[in-house]
Amino acid sequence: MRKTRYNAYAAACPTRKVLDRIADKWTVLIIGLLEQRPHRFGELLRGIDGISQKMLTQTLRSLEYDGLVDRRAKPTVPVTVEYSLTNAGRTLTEPLEAIRRWAERHIETVTAARSRTENGKENRG
Amino acid sequence: MRKTRYNAYAAACPTRKVLDRIADKWTVLIIGLLEQRPHRFGELLRGIDGISQKMLTQTLRSLEYDGLVDRRAKPTVPVTVEYSLTNAGRTLTEPLEAIRRWAERHIETVTAARSRTENGKENRG
Repeated sequence: MRKTRYNAYAAACPTRKVLDRIADKWTVLIIGLLEQRPHRFGELLRGIDGISQKMLTQTLRSLEYDGLVDRRAKPTVPVTVEYSLTNAGRTLTEPLEAIRRWAERHIETVTAARSRTENGKENRG
Repeated sequence: MRKTRYNAYAAACPTRKVLDRIADKWTVLIIGLLEQRPHRFGELLRGIDGISQKMLTQTLRSLEYDGLVDRRAKPTVPVTVEYSLTNAGRTLTEPLEAIRRWAERHIETVTAARSRTENGKENRG
């Protein structure tokens, strides 16, 4: 019964917002790193080639807000801030890894389709 | 050996682009509908509450370009255009459904985390 209450196809359904958050390439990459071990901000920034500082900050804040990532300041000098997965965040690693794996496995099919389209365009016009 | 050639953590890796396309809420919702049966444009538009005509057109074009969705014009009067999954597109349904299922299963945990954050803010400020 409970299951039918939620429907991501309805714009106002809260699952739509969650879907928006987790179906996101930066989320996939961040969660993938945190799955291995906690990371500091700078480590995440260096680990994800091409992400801007602003985008990383925003995505981490959203993930923290949603209770998927934990932000912890350690009382060192200077203070070090570490990000790790919460229990809820850990449940997300499996479906997101499947997405990453799909991308790596099917990249050649996709690349081939793209060049077919490109060639088709050239032939036509 | 081949597997190590691709790495979505590198900005220039082609898998990054693919990840960008498939880790997207509209892709998840479109593929979810096409998984059931081929759909016409208008059916997709009505089926996905809140998607704009422009966004649906763009996403379908990208999916077609990547060889995941097939666009077929039927010789009816007037011509009807139908979208369906290609074989490659069908391999994507399982990982994307896992994402949708996760959103529906964990929405209450996420909502609870959000209200905790909100309450924390109020108490502090």
